Amino acid sequence: MGRWEPDARGRLLRAALELFSERGYEATTTAQIAERAGLTKATLFRLFPDKREIVFQGQARLVALVTTGVQNAPAEARPVELVAAGLSALSDAHTQEHRDLGRTLDAIVASSEELRERAVFKRWAITSAFEQALIARLGDPHKAGVLADLGTRAFYTGGEKWLATDDRHCLADYVLRELASYEDLMRACFTAQ
Amino acid sequence: MGRWEPDARGRLLRAALELFSERGYEATTTAQIAERAGLTKATLFRLFPDKREIVFQGQARLVALVTTGVQNAPAEARPVELVAAGLSALSDAHTQEHRDLGRTLDAIVASSEELRERAVFKRWAITSAFEQALIARLGDPHKAGVLADLGTRAFYTGGEKWLATDDRHCLADYVLRELASYEDLMRACFTAQ
Repeated sequence: MGRWEPDARGRLLRAALELFSERGYEATTTAQIAERAGLTKATLFRLFPDKREIVFQGQARLVALVTTGVQNAPAEARPVELVAAGLSALSDAHTQEHRDLGRTLDAIVASSEELRERAVFKRWAITSAFEQALIARLGDPHKAGVLADLGTRAFYTGGEKWLATDDRHCLADYVLRELASYEDLMRACFTAQ
Repeated sequence: MGRWEPDARGRLLRAALELFSERGYEATTTAQIAERAGLTKATLFRLFPDKREIVFQGQARLVALVTTGVQNAPAEARPVELVAAGLSALSDAHTQEHRDLGRTLDAIVASSEELRERAVFKRWAITSAFEQALIARLGDPHKAGVLADLGTRAFYTGGEKWLATDDRHCLADYVLRELASYEDLMRACFTAQ
């Protein structure tokens, strides 16, 4: 029961995604997930409060990555380069393997109101961490807030494009290209139709 | 039981806010809210699935307001003017009475993890409605997404400033001033520190 289980979190994630895909999110129980992962229910509940959180276990890591990414940007970085540093740290943690996982995850989240609501909260948690890290570097909450929105949008929109294709580009290519497009976009929005 | 109760939704909102302030959100039951409002539990459950949704009853109206606000903007409006039209429609629905209500509401939401998570979802619902309305007018999902983020941020940040003061300015003054500040802000972010 209490013993250490190698990669218990990853095993629970894979088991949960399999079962949610096969039977649906609502119909799957924590007992079934634990069994599929070859673990006890006690181990599952030591790691996660409920089945929903198994799917969102990556949130804490993404929050930490964006925070240290912005913190570690060069002292002379312009505001938009601080955002790019946060986005690079986020994106570089995603391998081609995550691309398949991401597609499965997106399909499951789309199937459940409860998961969609939780996914919105995850996006907000990333935006919020981005904002706090940018405030620490820029000392300007106003600027930090707008840049955090832009950065998070670049991460999600670039990510959608990455998941929708099968080229050899890494996530960072998509995300940083997205961010770079916002400069012209903003200019166009504030001037002409 | 089934009879029409005048302003049942408003009475439930006021009763819920009173009780949440007095006893805390967790400790308050739907039975207590119905009783304080002078209504039956059956009436409460005909209108809301749970106590949480009583507090967020304004969401549907805000979503409708931002949508029609953008729809009804003049044909020649620049992109940023479409955002301003959506924000005016949202803001003009808020009276000085809403200012007191907003302060009470903010304090209650801040006290509960469940309510904070729901508030993030409400903000996303407004952003999403803004985005869809802007896509319909601009035909450019890319531009619409970034503008929807900026517009929603202007609404919330302007709103915070409005709630924090007691002058005679209306919400629209704060929100539109906030939006106007984003042009210079964006220029500064993409150029110098």
